[in-house]
Amino acid sequence: MRAPDELRALIEGYLRLLDLSGDLGDLRDSMRYSLEGGGKRIRPVLCLATADAIGCEPEQALPAAAALELVHAFSLVHDDLPALDDDAERRGRPSTHIQWGEAVAILAGDALLGEAVRLALGYPSPAVARELIAATQGMIGGQYLDISGSGELAEMHRLKTGRLFVAAIGLALEVAELPAPDQVPWRAFAEELGLLFQLVDDLLDRDGYVLVHGVEETRRLADEAAARAQTKLAAIDADTSVLEEIVAGLVARTS
Amino acid sequence: MRAPDELRALIEGYLRLLDLSGDLGDLRDSMRYSLEGGGKRIRPVLCLATADAIGCEPEQALPAAAALELVHAFSLVHDDLPALDDDAERRGRPSTHIQWGEAVAILAGDALLGEAVRLALGYPSPAVARELIAATQGMIGGQYLDISGSGELAEMHRLKTGRLFVAAIGLALEVAELPAPDQVPWRAFAEELGLLFQLVDDLLDRDGYVLVHGVEETRRLADEAAARAQTKLAAIDADTSVLEEIVAGLVARTS
Repeated sequence: MRAPDELRALIEGYLRLLDLSGDLGDLRDSMRYSLEGGGKRIRPVLCLATADAIGCEPEQALPAAAALELVHAFSLVHDDLPALDDDAERRGRPSTHIQWGEAVAILAGDALLGEAVRLALGYPSPAVARELIAATQGMIGGQYLDISGSGELAEMHRLKTGRLFVAAIGLALEVAELPAPDQVPWRAFAEELGLLFQLVDDLLDRDGYVLVHGVEETRRLADEAAARAQTKLAAIDADTSVLEEIVAGLVARTS
Repeated sequence: MRAPDELRALIEGYLRLLDLSGDLGDLRDSMRYSLEGGGKRIRPVLCLATADAIGCEPEQALPAAAALELVHAFSLVHDDLPALDDDAERRGRPSTHIQWGEAVAILAGDALLGEAVRLALGYPSPAVARELIAATQGMIGGQYLDISGSGELAEMHRLKTGRLFVAAIGLALEVAELPAPDQVPWRAFAEELGLLFQLVDDLLDRDGYVLVHGVEETRRLADEAAARAQTKLAAIDADTSVLEEIVAGLVARTS
């Protein structure tokens, strides 16, 4: 079993050398800029760790894990635009539209989504790309709930944040071609991850759930989500030790 | 063989009843708005006519043809945005960002691309979705050349306009699972279509090629492209009469 840091190095290396479509020309510079922001790569690491736990080489899951990170990057580039969240900074650097202009940022986001699909389509079965695009549509639906102020907070986060976390696990299952019945306990675990991540995010940013429920209650909800995630991991017939470590890290994270 | 008008009615009906992902919620209203603009549906009609000529039921090619129209709609929604072409009108109606706001238009464009991929992934082979996404990336690359003012006019149009026309034919070939060697003459024909469409477009709008080469020379180029397209059609061992009619209509069109 490979440690989380090893898996993160694997995905970083893969993303650095990623061969984007030549037809995109110099637009690729802005795409690489948005990909190299130095995030924690939590979604692809979860994907690779899941593959490893199932007994599938993490290397085999790399294109799927990278595709997920590209979808995440695409969503950040578009969310940061003036018409949406209007964020001029992202992880301490100018956001993509500040660095490259708004027109380029719109196209770079579009092209990141396109490249994500292209990567997922490299597998023999279309199931990998289907998993990716279903999660992407859910995420966009969640972003729409967010900007339109309609819907409940929990439903918005289940879509906007949760769907990509579910896909982190789901993509590994599809890459490994795990039969549907064997996927059930994995997907039950996956459902807990998005909520857990969002609760801790809101605790760190003092917004979202914290504004509705207060700090103490949000902390309690996060601890409960983590406990459920660990219980569901324990019910899976596989060596899930690295995933347990990642979940523990998600709860304890400070940034 | 079905007539072009019959094929257009087929795609119109399919698009009207299209079941967009439920996760997108009310965002679907803006997506439908952008899809119902009453375009000529030239790309999906070409796709269905090609399927028919190969001996594949046009109904079988409907999801692929619709996917192509969704990619086209996505590109128009994003191209019309203030940061790009800043067009307030599209086919005599307010463009999507005027009608629904800029944030919704950005997300609607993203979701149209996602739905296009989802439709293409409904086929057993990933080749259909691969064809679609390769064309999409080419189109985005062409749009980037357009806004950045880099590259030559011909290369820009080969990507921005041409790639979706090539895909109109290519998608039908992949839906019909035509072996690669048998695809060669079809793809040679397809390569002529995008240029032909763009030349006539520029003649009608008095821009692009007309600004560089003048009206007479552009008309001559269009007639030559049409002649090459018809010659390449004639070389294909299939009943291409409806496609010949569509090509003739492309040259003669006045809107």
